[in-house]
Amino acid sequence: MPAEQLAEITELFAFRRTGYSLDAPFYADPTVFKIDMEAIFGKHWIFAASVAELPEPGDYVTVDYGPYSLIVLHNDDGGVNVLHNVCRHRGARVLTESAGSTGNLVCGYHSWTYSPSGDLIHASAPGEAKFDKNCFALKRAHSRVVAGLIFVCIADEPPADFDETSKIFEPYLAPHDLSKTKIAYQQNIIEEGNWKLVMENNRECYHCDGHPELACSLFPTWGLTEGLIPPHLEEVWDRNKEAQSSLEERCRRYGLPYEVVEELDTRIAGIRISRESLDGEGESFSADGRRLSKKLLGDLPDFRLGRCSMHLQPNSWFHFLGDHVITFGVFPINEHQSLVRTTWLVADDAEEGVDYDLEKLTYTWKQTNLQDKAFVELCQKGAGSPAYEPGPYMKSEYQVEAFINWYVQRVQEHLA
Amino acid sequence: MPAEQLAEITELFAFRRTGYSLDAPFYADPTVFKIDMEAIFGKHWIFAASVAELPEPGDYVTVDYGPYSLIVLHNDDGGVNVLHNVCRHRGARVLTESAGSTGNLVCGYHSWTYSPSGDLIHASAPGEAKFDKNCFALKRAHSRVVAGLIFVCIADEPPADFDETSKIFEPYLAPHDLSKTKIAYQQNIIEEGNWKLVMENNRECYHCDGHPELACSLFPTWGLTEGLIPPHLEEVWDRNKEAQSSLEERCRRYGLPYEVVEELDTRIAGIRISRESLDGEGESFSADGRRLSKKLLGDLPDFRLGRCSMHLQPNSWFHFLGDHVITFGVFPINEHQSLVRTTWLVADDAEEGVDYDLEKLTYTWKQTNLQDKAFVELCQKGAGSPAYEPGPYMKSEYQVEAFINWYVQRVQEHLA
Amino acid sequence: MPAEQLAEITELFAFRRTGYSLDAPFYADPTVFKIDMEAIFGKHWIFAASVAELPEPGDYVTVDYGPYSLIVLHNDDGGVNVLHNVCRHRGARVLTESAGSTGNLVCGYHSWTYSPSGDLIHASAPGEAKFDKNCFALKRAHSRVVAGLIFVCIADEPPADFDETSKIFEPYLAPHDLSKTKIAYQQNIIEEGNWKLVMENNRECYHCDGHPELACSLFPTWGLTEGLIPPHLEEVWDRNKEAQSSLEERCRRYGLPYEVVEELDTRIAGIRISRESLDGEGESFSADGRRLSKKLLGDLPDFRLGRCSMHLQPNSWFHFLGDHVITFGVFPINEHQSLVRTTWLVADDAEEGVDYDLEKLTYTWKQTNLQDKAFVELCQKGAGSPAYEPGPYMKSEYQVEAFINWYVQRVQEHLA
Repeated sequence: MPAEQLAEITELFAFRRTGYSLDAPFYADPTVFKIDMEAIFGKHWIFAASVAELPEPGDYVTVDYGPYSLIVLHNDDGGVNVLHNVCRHRGARVLTESAGSTGNLVCGYHSWTYSPSGDLIHASAPGEAKFDKNCFALKRAHSRVVAGLIFVCIADEPPADFDETSKIFEPYLAPHDLSKTKIAYQQNIIEEGNWKLVMENNRECYHCDGHPELACSLFPTWGLTEGLIPPHLEEVWDRNKEAQSSLEERCRRYGLPYEVVEELDTRIAGIRISRESLDGEGESFSADGRRLSKKLLGDLPDFRLGRCSMHLQPNSWFHFLGDHVITFGVFPINEHQSLVRTTWLVADDAEEGVDYDLEKLTYTWKQTNLQDKAFVELCQKGAGSPAYEPGPYMKSEYQVEAFINWYVQRVQEHLA
Repeated sequence: MPAEQLAEITELFAFRRTGYSLDAPFYADPTVFKIDMEAIFGKHWIFAASVAELPEPGDYVTVDYGPYSLIVLHNDDGGVNVLHNVCRHRGARVLTESAGSTGNLVCGYHSWTYSPSGDLIHASAPGEAKFDKNCFALKRAHSRVVAGLIFVCIADEPPADFDETSKIFEPYLAPHDLSKTKIAYQQNIIEEGNWKLVMENNRECYHCDGHPELACSLFPTWGLTEGLIPPHLEEVWDRNKEAQSSLEERCRRYGLPYEVVEELDTRIAGIRISRESLDGEGESFSADGRRLSKKLLGDLPDFRLGRCSMHLQPNSWFHFLGDHVITFGVFPINEHQSLVRTTWLVADDAEEGVDYDLEKLTYTWKQTNLQDKAFVELCQKGAGSPAYEPGPYMKSEYQVEAFINWYVQRVQEHLA
Repeated sequence: MPAEQLAEITELFAFRRTGYSLDAPFYADPTVFKIDMEAIFGKHWIFAASVAELPEPGDYVTVDYGPYSLIVLHNDDGGVNVLHNVCRHRGARVLTESAGSTGNLVCGYHSWTYSPSGDLIHASAPGEAKFDKNCFALKRAHSRVVAGLIFVCIADEPPADFDETSKIFEPYLAPHDLSKTKIAYQQNIIEEGNWKLVMENNRECYHCDGHPELACSLFPTWGLTEGLIPPHLEEVWDRNKEAQSSLEERCRRYGLPYEVVEELDTRIAGIRISRESLDGEGESFSADGRRLSKKLLGDLPDFRLGRCSMHLQPNSWFHFLGDHVITFGVFPINEHQSLVRTTWLVADDAEEGVDYDLEKLTYTWKQTNLQDKAFVELCQKGAGSPAYEPGPYMKSEYQVEAFINWYVQRVQEHLA
């Protein structure tokens, strides 16, 4: 990057006003996007998929973000290999499907053939004297599988603190046992907005009046605290308090952690996790709070476990319930487009039409995703106007601010 | 803008050859477009709509050009408010429809609520101690309503000479009384061409052989002067002269101004206005010149009033007839695309299917617009070739040249 | 181009690693594309069409590459005029169809009228005193017609060595007599890949396992040499040898040249030409090698003439057979898109449905083109990843390397 351009970008970050939304170039400038891909997506652990998406050895998914394309492959040792999806011969994409099953990886162009670990094991080369196959393995990236979630990192040296973050979230998620789940449905939507707007939008419920379906599950007192409850919400407030203490009592009985851990801007692998009650029956994201799948996950003792919700920076959030799990991955395309991949997981012995109705299972979050897409797109459009200027975060948006603080700090360290 | 780039642009303007069309970058370079948005659309009065598009208090249209989005709103005092369509909280677009009716303006994201004049009157903020709503009104822009035409200006200090220009055109247009008209039809077309090519194209009739429908109304002697009439056009020439003097006689009788006022490059709010005869019956843009709507506009005494035609820089032209009015607004999208919005207005008591046939009313200019779109697009494509070099304006294109002179002068003043 | 940018580009070329595919910016950077248009397409002879596409005086095709649009016109003297398709008045495209027949060339905007040689012969300009039509002819480019192939060059001084190259290929192609052929079919496909990837792909058959239909015609021993034949291919190898010596014997008898001439990177107008045997009956690109059209081309004495195949840099390749000819022209659109135009020619007295079946005639290369498009697109995508690094060319890809050497050398001379 030319020195002058880099100086401009550095200044942009330096002059960011704390407590206010970011300046327009953060959302619309291709140079900032390039920096984001280097400093954030090129250096951090990225949520790629869950083990339910590649249950058998040979199963793979391809994951694209920014200019990168990665192969995430279930290897014969039960682990996961991550390979850059670029042939070492003339650069062709090796795998072209978004998911599938494969033995060796054969490039479609000249049939260069790689083992599942990326070694070049065959390249037809008649008469070739001095061609050393060992020099042309597919480039590898790092992987971690924690509680059934697969993370990848393309940096040479991934940030070490992910181990600590893993230790935080593993006890919350492990009881739901993703290794015994299957995909009920996967949705890919492209939002016409910068990836940061997608993440910001998910960090607050100040906008949750815009989610009528979700509001059946979440108590409409989000962001309120004792002493600030308007009269018409007092009843709800009490219902929420009661549901939460009942949930916590059950968690203690079952040995399930539930406390809020919030380290969004105090560590590299920023996290927020907690187990919170749901309205109604308290079991799932349905209008009345009842279970949406009849099969309990893992060895869970009870359906009535609210939602164990996790945010992981930079690109994911999750809801783990008694009857199903939903994973959300954000994969930036360019400065103004992002792919949001949502996956609904149920117990692997749950039968569609018998144990769960697919429409009902996915209804609340399909609606919520569409509403969020619209919100993100309103902001992307708005940021395009020279009349836009950063506005103040409200108290109920402190997590958005924490995410932004984290982002700015991470990039500044990279630029330094 | 980096100094080097600015120097290049400044030079481009400085080396422009008088009497010739502009160099290619004026039409195809995104940097020039950016300058155009600052120097022209960011500083001048822009035609936005007519009062017929927002007849009642609370009615609004949104108008987008370049990176801007504006709300143009009929307020309770009968005036017009112009607001930047960007929420002061996190930058979302506030209104998303192109036209509608509203009370307060509620942002769809977090329900920040603004009065019709833009004041922030409600922002739910539980527990927020030090939040001063007075600091977060929607940003305002200027408006002027003259003879029922609404103009907006986003500059802090709009150019003052618009008042003089208004005084020129008001007496011509006021008798058609737009406040007693309604929209018969509105057409939005996107032309794949720079906004200046759209305006240039409208400044001459040298290409009018390409408008067979329009040629029924305009006399095919456009651009000719006494002594240069070829034998086969002598009859038409005489017919035109007769029609014009008959029209002028009627105008004098009714007290309607008709003289040509042409100040395209001699003032900031450049204008050309005149009342000219139409062929045939001389009433309207029909094949035989007869009226297309049976209801006379305003208090006009007669259908046979030709066309009162006005060009207003930078982005509009108009035809005011006895039976209907057509407004044309050009809204740049980027350096190679422009929205052209054409609106047909008839008397508010004219009944579709009874007093006017919509197909017939709109036929001539729908055809003409399509032909003009093709012309503009031929030029945009042509300017893309390195083989393009500016060509000479003919005498009959002196108004194009005047527009270009005005444009160059306006930008140079901005750059200075 | 700013000095800093030019320095970067110059360095990119200087640091190119011999024997390896090019770095990513060569395929994806718009600045390199701009340089390609100047240094390669702006300076060299470009294959435009064959005489069969414009058989009569007045027939024309328009040819677009990069930012250029050219008119290639059959003039009254039996030669070809090449004109920039940009009106000298206000820059409109003059001809808008991809092919047609015309007398004078009339610009659709203001009817400026040019003779077939580009002279401005009419511009309606009432009252215009000092307008010299002689100054406003359409800009002209150079043309050469050799063996019925039409080449154009927009440089002021076209490279002289094309005459030598012409002398090489004319004796091979002339006997097929394109002047007595007609178009059976023309296919235009847009490949989402840089033009160099398209050319590279055609310079090797290492990927020909991906062309099952073409493999029926080409012997599957491509790239092998004596002593390296695997047992299962020995039979094919012998069949190929026999077919080739039989073909050469016939060529000697008929006085047709067949030797390989390969000067891909040893001259400006780089060429490879040869006549090689086809499998099966050895006549055409059919599954069994039999003729696909019943009419022999020109004065050829025999259908069994294999394929006379020619590569011509920078943008074409050809197959001349006894029964038909296929021309391939590559026309860059931008750094990541290229138009590939394929034209099947048969004897002008061949009757569709009687002498040839159009589906069968075009089957093999339609399939092959689609497969090649996919290969090119895999590489373009792959080059987008920062994980891409240039890989080694195999021996069987020496022609790709020669093309790349030529390209690098040509651009470096331009930059010097």
